Amino acid sequence: MTIAATPAAPYYAVIFTSLRRHSPDDDGYGAMADAMQALAARQPGYLGVESAREETGITVSYWASLEAIAAWKQVGEHLIAQQMGRRDWYLAYKTRICKVERDYGFEADGA
Amino acid sequence: MTIAATPAAPYYAVIFTSLRRHSPDDDGYGAMADAMQALAARQPGYLGVESAREETGITVSYWASLEAIAAWKQVGEHLIAQQMGRRDWYLAYKTRICKVERDYGFEADGA
Repeated sequence: MTIAATPAAPYYAVIFTSLRRHSPDDDGYGAMADAMQALAARQPGYLGVESAREETGITVSYWASLEAIAAWKQVGEHLIAQQMGRRDWYLAYKTRICKVERDYGFEADGA
Repeated sequence: MTIAATPAAPYYAVIFTSLRRHSPDDDGYGAMADAMQALAARQPGYLGVESAREETGITVSYWASLEAIAAWKQVGEHLIAQQMGRRDWYLAYKTRICKVERDYGFEADGA
């Protein structure tokens, strides 16, 4: 997991911020999250993903268009994962659909 | 750190994704990050922040306008933190300025 190599703006971002339920074990969550990231990467218009988790988890996926985001939300396996998320894994989440208007970055010498 | 209680869209988000340098100690990073989050929270137009770090760190701050984001970037202590970040803490980062066009969320019963 690293910084996504997105194209020149504008493009779109989905910020998914979540709080997990307290669970004695992983409950299949890690495997499902990995499977969903692999599946997302095969969708039309996918540009990249970034993810980090402490108490709060943040996953940002990047897309070429709002249509690509809407299509990904409706993919069958993804719909099932969304249902399982609400039933088993998440105490709460928020999804924000954004237009990335501009971006800039930094790389250290030799990075 | 939890899910930010942002108002109805539209509003703005700054997605800051970073890779830390490998360092034998914290190098003052944690204290500076905490100070910057406290300082950001006192700026006009600040709406909230979400943050998580594994190998990649993601901090998303939310703002009422592009003007509020531009003003925060220029606050003196923040400019110093940005310089220290490039010199000492970050191998690479990317900042994305976004308009949040819509959002939706979920809360489990009793959450």
